[in-house]
Amino acid sequence: MKIVIDAMGSDSAPTVEVEGAVQAVEEFGYELVLVGDETIIKEELKKFGDCSAKISTMHAPERIEMHEPAAISVRRKRHSSIVVGLELLKREEADGFVSAGNTGAVVCAATLSLRLLPGIERPGIAVIIPTLAGASVIIDVGANINPKPIHLLQYGIMADAYSRYILHKTNPTTGLLNVGEEESKGTEFIKEAHTLLSESKLNFIGNIEGRDIYAGTADIILCDGFVGNVILKVSESIVDTIVKALKQEIKASIIATVGAALAGSAFNELKKKMDYAEYGGAPLLGVDGRCIISHGSSTSKAIKNAIRVAAEFKTQDVNKHIVEELESY
Amino acid sequence: MKIVIDAMGSDSAPTVEVEGAVQAVEEFGYELVLVGDETIIKEELKKFGDCSAKISTMHAPERIEMHEPAAISVRRKRHSSIVVGLELLKREEADGFVSAGNTGAVVCAATLSLRLLPGIERPGIAVIIPTLAGASVIIDVGANINPKPIHLLQYGIMADAYSRYILHKTNPTTGLLNVGEEESKGTEFIKEAHTLLSESKLNFIGNIEGRDIYAGTADIILCDGFVGNVILKVSESIVDTIVKALKQEIKASIIATVGAALAGSAFNELKKKMDYAEYGGAPLLGVDGRCIISHGSSTSKAIKNAIRVAAEFKTQDVNKHIVEELESY
Repeated sequence: MKIVIDAMGSDSAPTVEVEGAVQAVEEFGYELVLVGDETIIKEELKKFGDCSAKISTMHAPERIEMHEPAAISVRRKRHSSIVVGLELLKREEADGFVSAGNTGAVVCAATLSLRLLPGIERPGIAVIIPTLAGASVIIDVGANINPKPIHLLQYGIMADAYSRYILHKTNPTTGLLNVGEEESKGTEFIKEAHTLLSESKLNFIGNIEGRDIYAGTADIILCDGFVGNVILKVSESIVDTIVKALKQEIKASIIATVGAALAGSAFNELKKKMDYAEYGGAPLLGVDGRCIISHGSSTSKAIKNAIRVAAEFKTQDVNKHIVEELESY
Repeated sequence: MKIVIDAMGSDSAPTVEVEGAVQAVEEFGYELVLVGDETIIKEELKKFGDCSAKISTMHAPERIEMHEPAAISVRRKRHSSIVVGLELLKREEADGFVSAGNTGAVVCAATLSLRLLPGIERPGIAVIIPTLAGASVIIDVGANINPKPIHLLQYGIMADAYSRYILHKTNPTTGLLNVGEEESKGTEFIKEAHTLLSESKLNFIGNIEGRDIYAGTADIILCDGFVGNVILKVSESIVDTIVKALKQEIKASIIATVGAALAGSAFNELKKKMDYAEYGGAPLLGVDGRCIISHGSSTSKAIKNAIRVAAEFKTQDVNKHIVEELESY
């Protein structure tokens, strides 16, 4: 198992990428390639003694910044860590790729170099979210902000394979995110997607609403990349807001402070369950390769787990299952 | 001041509507009209002694249920509490209308009977949300799931007047909800709206992201009704999920249970701040009248506060300010 890591991606690059890689080697024993500015990466690697048996580096002098426009930066920065790293996958010199960098650039570069799976027209980013009923998958969260109805069906088929082979769900349910449960609700785009999904072989439970997402009503939540992106960012910020607001309230009262200290274990357990770092990264489903996108503010633990997810994709041969399913349509 | 209340709207109708009306009379002294099944309403009113000096009833034998299609039900049920109540406003026999019923039906009936303000093409529902920086307004949350860019500019102008005259903000900032901060981001719809907003007289701060909503980055958040509706429902459900999950964790530990009891005051303070019932209802901005839409699961307190909001709209003459602002364009 050989996984390539964009060492220049995250907000704390390359520190968390190097740390995450070292942790992944210790825990899983994979072979890893860190792509980016070799001088800086090697400097970071020194902190962990001699890792050269399992971790190699590949020089990529350019870096695509978070706010650069995706398509232009990928075309211009052929020597960036994202483009160079994905080329390794294209040449089949590695099994998977992990990046916490510019999401748009990763989607663009992966689509260009890995190409799409047969039958897939647009890739989608699938994110695992914690719900009251366990883990669910939401797709797409930003690869394609203007999809066609058929793309939502393709997302559904891909997420179904993902849920079966990575989350080990036997007959995952699929819901279409809408403003109401009734078939008559929604835009033309949503109504057409509803028809396609109803006629599919998916375990489609119909429209679901915003409130159903974290209730765990569906194992798979389908939406366009604009809505998915907003949901994900709103969700993160609400959790932050509640924690900050609670802290403000608690500070104002001595009894509450003591109480909060005693209740601390419960808070920490919850925080662990809500921690995206446990899931590590979101696969870009639909490309002919294994590309995992991590959060720009990833911790080393998130990077380690993203590496694990990339490896599981290979072991479980998720893409083969997606293609087989698509062929049956 | 005379406010009309759809007594058959909420999930607990007419109990919460009648209770809320009685509370509003006690607290604010307005004159109120409860519209709906008179026999049932009068039965409820009996619980509170003789309220006939301030609360009258108007019979409307039909009821539009939550899941009925909006346009059809409004056309067919001319004797429903929503249609009959709004007719009172149309005939200028009352100053405002409050309903916790079928949102789509209220939007449709209000647009048909009250008509739109000059210069407004589509109405929008404006909801006040609590943020780390105070109250913000998000518009639209579901009146119009397929708006044109110009509608977002109109929402912005209306929400600006709302923020100035109801929330008493001096120079409210307006943000356009997008998947990134850069001007180049988003769909064609969003890019066109961005151009219109940039050229407007609003205090436009550009694109904002999902994470900015509860951080309070903008006083006014503009989005289409599909996205707004999903955000609102997701937000509610996340708060519920966190509370439920925390309770599960806390139950699992005796020390945490004691701690939670001690920290309880902080929880309650926070809950109060996050309580939508404090704001009561969301105005349907753009109709030539004062129409406040409340949550289907409203409490009597929420109904009472929605009545207050309707009255404030009259006192502050928000619609006049909106029209003046629109005329300057």
